Amino acid sequence: MNAELVTVGSELLRFGKRDGNSEWLARQLQRVGVEVTARTAVDDDLERIASVVSAAFRRADVVLITGGLGPTDDDRTREALGRALHLPLVLDESRVEQLRRLYEQYGRPLGAAETKQAQRPRGSSWIDNPLGSAAGVLVEHEGRILVALPGVPAEMRAMFSATVLPLLERAGLQPLRALTLKIAGHTESSLDRRLRDLYAISGLDVTVLGGVEGLELYVRARSVRGRNDEAEKALAEFERQTRERLGADVLGTGEEGLAAVVGALLRERGQTLATAESCTAGLLGAALTDVPESSKWYRGGVIVYADELKPLLAGVRAETLADHGAVSEAVARELAEGVRRRCGADMALALTGIAGPGGGTAEKPVGLVHVALQDDLSSLHRRLRFIGDRDTVRRRAVTAAMDLVRRRLLERG
Amino acid sequence: MNAELVTVGSELLRFGKRDGNSEWLARQLQRVGVEVTARTAVDDDLERIASVVSAAFRRADVVLITGGLGPTDDDRTREALGRALHLPLVLDESRVEQLRRLYEQYGRPLGAAETKQAQRPRGSSWIDNPLGSAAGVLVEHEGRILVALPGVPAEMRAMFSATVLPLLERAGLQPLRALTLKIAGHTESSLDRRLRDLYAISGLDVTVLGGVEGLELYVRARSVRGRNDEAEKALAEFERQTRERLGADVLGTGEEGLAAVVGALLRERGQTLATAESCTAGLLGAALTDVPESSKWYRGGVIVYADELKPLLAGVRAETLADHGAVSEAVARELAEGVRRRCGADMALALTGIAGPGGGTAEKPVGLVHVALQDDLSSLHRRLRFIGDRDTVRRRAVTAAMDLVRRRLLERG
Repeated sequence: MNAELVTVGSELLRFGKRDGNSEWLARQLQRVGVEVTARTAVDDDLERIASVVSAAFRRADVVLITGGLGPTDDDRTREALGRALHLPLVLDESRVEQLRRLYEQYGRPLGAAETKQAQRPRGSSWIDNPLGSAAGVLVEHEGRILVALPGVPAEMRAMFSATVLPLLERAGLQPLRALTLKIAGHTESSLDRRLRDLYAISGLDVTVLGGVEGLELYVRARSVRGRNDEAEKALAEFERQTRERLGADVLGTGEEGLAAVVGALLRERGQTLATAESCTAGLLGAALTDVPESSKWYRGGVIVYADELKPLLAGVRAETLADHGAVSEAVARELAEGVRRRCGADMALALTGIAGPGGGTAEKPVGLVHVALQDDLSSLHRRLRFIGDRDTVRRRAVTAAMDLVRRRLLERG
Repeated sequence: MNAELVTVGSELLRFGKRDGNSEWLARQLQRVGVEVTARTAVDDDLERIASVVSAAFRRADVVLITGGLGPTDDDRTREALGRALHLPLVLDESRVEQLRRLYEQYGRPLGAAETKQAQRPRGSSWIDNPLGSAAGVLVEHEGRILVALPGVPAEMRAMFSATVLPLLERAGLQPLRALTLKIAGHTESSLDRRLRDLYAISGLDVTVLGGVEGLELYVRARSVRGRNDEAEKALAEFERQTRERLGADVLGTGEEGLAAVVGALLRERGQTLATAESCTAGLLGAALTDVPESSKWYRGGVIVYADELKPLLAGVRAETLADHGAVSEAVARELAEGVRRRCGADMALALTGIAGPGGGTAEKPVGLVHVALQDDLSSLHRRLRFIGDRDTVRRRAVTAAMDLVRRRLLERG
């Protein structure tokens, strides 16, 4: 089963905006085994929408359209569907009645523009919108499915999960058995060397994807044909062997990011964390607290961007700074030690480095970052070198720091 | 002149990846006045690429394709172009010779796969690639232009700027006169009330766009017809009157974000800034230091996520915490005062609030944020209420804090 996505809206084309709805839908579809073969964003032009939709419907089993279902003049998806499918629009009186009640609740009159929302192509049906006035439209035609949903992300997502997914399953979609394993501390080729023979387990299809926080192994069980137990067994075997070989390099299997994994480990062990940041200047603290309820395990810390603040806020010794410079192992270790003590935390992470674009030297180049971790038993340190622009260096430094504490927590048990 | 963008590559469709090339191209084209009316990402299937390209070429004056020009089996754009345009592929011997020399430099043999890169549709021409082996392809047909560029962002961007833009100008594109004004502290409707009559200045086309940091007014001078001086005059008049009416609500005209604007003001005035963050936990520090050379004006600060750290790291009095609670005007003011003193900064910003999803009460709901600003003369405070998820509340709080210091700097002069 393959799908094409169409997003309607001039505002999306302007200024190169990101198409968040299509990105989200593509992930959901992939997860259940529907291959997304194309996605198009098109402006509010009626002819163009119709042309894009009709081409997509010729190429794909499923076409999902978002946007253009509202009451304004710019909302032309309904009409474009009619043109693309050569079907007249009909007014559904019972839907008009529903809209009348809805707008009464809103305290707004139901005018001609709003009533337009009760039109749909002949033979199509409604998809209930639990969160707004724009119902979705479903057309089934020669085994193909065309669905139009509103562009408001919350409405679109709710309708996709409640109605469209079950619809695809009824249409013969066999939910795919799949597994995602997040991996830290590997390159594609080092992973390949360690796992190559596992990739060949019969019936499995393995894709390696790069992300900000490391690699992801996306493993699909192919050619299931009703034998889900076989597929599950193959996936479980893949996971078992991968974990055996990679140990702590396996971050997890879920949607959870590194910060959430670190948070869960800290919480489980009743430990707290503090941070001292120089080059990342708060990015680590912000990443950790992106996780709801992070106050259960994250205490806070210091941003010691100016060198004078390293002694003032984290107790780094002036001699250490003078002897080794701010970007050094010794300063990283003292930062971690100092912030741990001052914040009364069980563990502390410190980062100091050169994010660029300026400030690098032959000895201390742009991209050099020292990470230190202090707990009650030991002081760990990593000297790292990242290649990339300022943003990349800072983000990768944050990832490395979180991964260091994650590994330490696993090791301590 | 309208354009459609096509990005080729299965990897882009998987997992809902972001289409960075199209986003970049859309911005570039818009800047020179080419309207982007659709953009499509399509997988590596030959038939599908050909179908998408030929539909786009029917609808648009300009079609820009990126990706699929490399030497591997997956690279099928060349062939798809031939199919879409009904043109046979021909091998360019002089290009083979160039490739041979290039691969000699790389120290790699030029095999059959690589030689494929010397093929192009009959009648097309090459677009030089200064950074790699995959040349671009240009087809001009009945006044329409079709360009295929490699998908490697650096190569694509260099080729677009060096060759494609001049080509569009030769093809009759009149570079558009346009102006972007970033606005803080307004909603679309409040802006509308203040500026409505200006929107009607003859020959100008005004679009209001929402962003994380406020609104953007994008003003284009229409129907220029060679009279650039008239267009410039209309834009200058629009800017003058907008600035007169909105004063400090105008953030700037450039690509620069709020952090860069704040940084430039601080630097100009020789002032330094420190931060104390609770709910944002480093996001403000990270945003400020996203600007290169921010060490010239940003000193650092404290992340006082746990309440116990507010006295410890920023000198908030225990009574203030007990009497008013951590999310309060009094605590925000003491945080700003304390961090300013401890960091030896001229100005200090403090943020304390409830980012959610949990932790809200009737009196102190999720989204409530107190911002305080302390300098040598005064202590300012704002009580704000943001609607949205955790991430939105935190980002908008950071924007509000940066805007507060910006306005204070402008006011002090």
